[in-house]
Amino acid sequence: MQHLKHFQGLAQVFFIRSPSSRLSKSVIPSLSVWDGHLSCRWRSTGGHGRQKYFNDRLPKFRFALAGLLAGTGAVLAYKLQQDKVQWAATSAQLRVTQTSDLPIYTLEEVTKHCSLDSGVWVTYKGAVYDITEFVAVHPGGDKILLAAGGALEPYWALYAVHQQDHVLEILSEYKIGVLDAESYKKQESANPLDPYSAEPTRHPALQINSLKPFNAEPPASILSDNYITPSVIFFKRNHLPVPRVDSEAYRLDIEGLPGGVVSLSLSELKSRFPKHTITATLQCAGNRRSEMNEVKQVKGLNWGIAAISNATWSGARLRDVLLFYGFGPEVAAKAKHVQFEGLDRDVTGTAYGASIPLNNAVSEEGDVLLAYEMNGEDLPPDHGYPVRVVVPGVVGARNVKWLGKIVVSDEESKSHWQQNDYKGFSPGTDWDTVDFKSAPAIQELPIQSAITHPAEGTSVDRSDREVTVKGYAWSGGGREVVRVDISVDGGKTWHVAKLRTSDQEQHPAPPPPPGRAWAWKLWEIDVPIPHRAQELEIVCKAVDSSYNMQPDTVAPIWNLRGVLSNAWHRVKVKVSEGFKDQK
Amino acid sequence: MQHLKHFQGLAQVFFIRSPSSRLSKSVIPSLSVWDGHLSCRWRSTGGHGRQKYFNDRLPKFRFALAGLLAGTGAVLAYKLQQDKVQWAATSAQLRVTQTSDLPIYTLEEVTKHCSLDSGVWVTYKGAVYDITEFVAVHPGGDKILLAAGGALEPYWALYAVHQQDHVLEILSEYKIGVLDAESYKKQESANPLDPYSAEPTRHPALQINSLKPFNAEPPASILSDNYITPSVIFFKRNHLPVPRVDSEAYRLDIEGLPGGVVSLSLSELKSRFPKHTITATLQCAGNRRSEMNEVKQVKGLNWGIAAISNATWSGARLRDVLLFYGFGPEVAAKAKHVQFEGLDRDVTGTAYGASIPLNNAVSEEGDVLLAYEMNGEDLPPDHGYPVRVVVPGVVGARNVKWLGKIVVSDEESKSHWQQNDYKGFSPGTDWDTVDFKSAPAIQELPIQSAITHPAEGTSVDRSDREVTVKGYAWSGGGREVVRVDISVDGGKTWHVAKLRTSDQEQHPAPPPPPGRAWAWKLWEIDVPIPHRAQELEIVCKAVDSSYNMQPDTVAPIWNLRGVLSNAWHRVKVKVSEGFKDQK
Repeated sequence: MQHLKHFQGLAQVFFIRSPSSRLSKSVIPSLSVWDGHLSCRWRSTGGHGRQKYFNDRLPKFRFALAGLLAGTGAVLAYKLQQDKVQWAATSAQLRVTQTSDLPIYTLEEVTKHCSLDSGVWVTYKGAVYDITEFVAVHPGGDKILLAAGGALEPYWALYAVHQQDHVLEILSEYKIGVLDAESYKKQESANPLDPYSAEPTRHPALQINSLKPFNAEPPASILSDNYITPSVIFFKRNHLPVPRVDSEAYRLDIEGLPGGVVSLSLSELKSRFPKHTITATLQCAGNRRSEMNEVKQVKGLNWGIAAISNATWSGARLRDVLLFYGFGPEVAAKAKHVQFEGLDRDVTGTAYGASIPLNNAVSEEGDVLLAYEMNGEDLPPDHGYPVRVVVPGVVGARNVKWLGKIVVSDEESKSHWQQNDYKGFSPGTDWDTVDFKSAPAIQELPIQSAITHPAEGTSVDRSDREVTVKGYAWSGGGREVVRVDISVDGGKTWHVAKLRTSDQEQHPAPPPPPGRAWAWKLWEIDVPIPHRAQELEIVCKAVDSSYNMQPDTVAPIWNLRGVLSNAWHRVKVKVSEGFKDQK
Repeated sequence: MQHLKHFQGLAQVFFIRSPSSRLSKSVIPSLSVWDGHLSCRWRSTGGHGRQKYFNDRLPKFRFALAGLLAGTGAVLAYKLQQDKVQWAATSAQLRVTQTSDLPIYTLEEVTKHCSLDSGVWVTYKGAVYDITEFVAVHPGGDKILLAAGGALEPYWALYAVHQQDHVLEILSEYKIGVLDAESYKKQESANPLDPYSAEPTRHPALQINSLKPFNAEPPASILSDNYITPSVIFFKRNHLPVPRVDSEAYRLDIEGLPGGVVSLSLSELKSRFPKHTITATLQCAGNRRSEMNEVKQVKGLNWGIAAISNATWSGARLRDVLLFYGFGPEVAAKAKHVQFEGLDRDVTGTAYGASIPLNNAVSEEGDVLLAYEMNGEDLPPDHGYPVRVVVPGVVGARNVKWLGKIVVSDEESKSHWQQNDYKGFSPGTDWDTVDFKSAPAIQELPIQSAITHPAEGTSVDRSDREVTVKGYAWSGGGREVVRVDISVDGGKTWHVAKLRTSDQEQHPAPPPPPGRAWAWKLWEIDVPIPHRAQELEIVCKAVDSSYNMQPDTVAPIWNLRGVLSNAWHRVKVKVSEGFKDQK
């Protein structure tokens, strides 16, 4: 709870009471300071018109590059630390170099160039850039137009990928002038609040893949030490800044039911519906993406094997809530999906969103929760405080955190993450040919397993005669893991590992009902070290209750977003000649 | 319907009316002629005691070898035709060779040796054999004891695998004497009715893997010519002789519901419940077993890629029937399975049996049918006339044909096929180490696909520039096939095939609700022939809506029963130098 307390402290400091909307009562509009320089677009087209404008322009480009950054927060963060130092130096020179013969502009003049028609001007550290021609090749897609007519700084604060040397070099090519001194001063004084300044503190053991938004996994070596992953090291996958939610003001809205919009407080959610507890594993669609990167670069966070964790979750069953508020056959006859909206929002005010099939949401066997507890305590801020959806057996991305709204609908969520992101494609599909409409949104995940011990590149001692291999295995859709096969010779011969469903000292959990195996299994085996082997290629592959099996190799399942990486996991270790026997 | 008429004609000839039981009214006790020579065992222990006797003896052996023959009808039929000629000659010599100095026995004396305690004697073509020591090494397990004290002929008629030269050679080693002339004459006159003498006629296109019991698949080349497979070439997988059922006398018993046993006539089943139609693909667990045999010999029928077919099925929903007869929460609280018993029985009177999880049976989305029509007509005899279960998305073996009984139970079916047969194991598990209790009964099947065109070993013409590749794809559990990837270079590069859900000239079927995609998809693609390629290794792999993918290779999924063979399908064709361009 230490983290939560810290987080609530921060929330009090930054809490802004606004009488204008209920939303702003419970969620700090941490991005509202930017409204000023966005006014060009808001005034000219309004929210809806702006979206249409984007849709009409660059339609192919939108899909082609939408995966890199867009709202996904897909930050290629490796090497970032090294680059930062050099970047700071380059950045400081930007305003002073080659400026003597360039025109001076006022902020008012810059603001007029806020569209492809009028030209797209931006400022950065007091210099003015005309990036009209760059828009079409921006790796992050048309989101760049959000900054048109204003400062880049607030956006680069949100998407840290820009803090690299080569980005500044590209920018410098488009320089057309400098801001006059007064405009620059004014702009600097309005220096926006870092939307990530109020993030909760995190456990130092976490291996960070992206700081803003925060994405981190525990070290693989400790992942399988606990059957129930402690919340502090449970993998974190945020798409946007963590919203700071006041539990007293919190409301959960439900739309699409006969009686109109329902609005529930946290205490109503807790008191009105039975508390249901499940143990469920969540896994990011990008878990083990780093193995796909080794085949060929993909777009997305470079997750290792630990973007998966297991916890107990308690809350109201979504089914109970929907039935209580009027869900019945007449709704079921029309509706096909249940959409979720988070309280985490991007700079345009767009909330994180996702949906699941209606059947899954209302099925008695689906066990979908509106969870308010994780491992017996209030949800931590990083995991959706005060309420998140837990859709067991389904990809993490649909388990919407900081849940603000539920919509029963005949349509899937229109969100970027549902429509143009978490989907699987053929290895032959690239960003030029991809058609996101051609693939279904990822829901249930396929069979998965990985080796947590020993680690790649370590040694085993021949005199030990055996090598102990450990790991996890899990499958989506409630399909139980029924077997894990282990090889130490690269897949030529196989041994069956021992599975467990609890920590070593505890009684194993009773077997789940068929189709409701939501939790992973940990496994372990001692395998004889083959004579004369100098190196072991340790391999694991799991089988679920539908006898789905993992593919052998990564390349044939490679896909441009690097999702669904579930080939056999392989770890190479050396066999060292020990001295135990000679003693 | 031609086959059905023929079949009914046969049924009239052989129909025996017996007042002793309802079962015998509707099913001909075609094996009853053997009761005489089974009397030793029946008298001594009775049916239940006999089973216990078997269970107490050779417990390890039972499991170790149960897969070869037992009740599975797992006949290794290849090469059978060639062997038969030689076999007939050897067989004729058996009685006359080396008999001059051997004792002469009466049938009465032979009958006394009907157990391991008293010794196990059998007769074959007038010779007497003491096979007591052979029992422990009989590849078919303890079923051999059924013949103890009597003639082998009736059993060998049932399991045609014995009609091979080496079997007779083994038998000759155990010869101890000959029957006296009177006994032999008596035995010959009681020559049992071939239980397979009244089988329906079959389409000549079928490729037969076993004649008795009948198991056959259509040629792969014609399999994907029809989206709905014509019934006559729909793959046939019988475990026992086809029972001849009188539809007027037919009764379906239902046990395990509050009101006691329910007994339904065919007309009641048809009139009392709404007729529900689904299109569903059935697949044998052993489909593509021949590819596993190429890795290492397995036990079972040597199926090619066509032990899978697609049909429309009409009947009452099992859910409707169970609810009508009292299924409710109090039953659901205790029951976990729904068992099915066929009217097809082995020599001991044991019916074919299987079960499915209760949830599947009663779920609104499960679409489990008590089907009485296939492709718009009465079920053909080979497909379960008059009523079979269709459990869409689930392995063929649970789709019990000639359905006689349904039992709602807290236990799985105790049948051999549920407990000790259709299960998957690790490649490292052999018949010495297998523990059938350690693996779940196969229910939902994993993702599958195969190439029906071109055929292995054929040629494509380089001047055509493209090769047309066709096939099928399907997944269990109602998971829809969402993509099929094709490679012509052994898996290095991939192309996405076009899927279809109807015949070419018809409108495609509307997309199924999520989780209810019961039917296969046919696919087709024209792939450019790579320059300079002398040979193409064409590969297909499919992906389902849970993004399950097929494993790359066969060896790592090899298992001792050769089930669940769903690795990438590979076909090699030569590239010939055509002359079209030079003309």
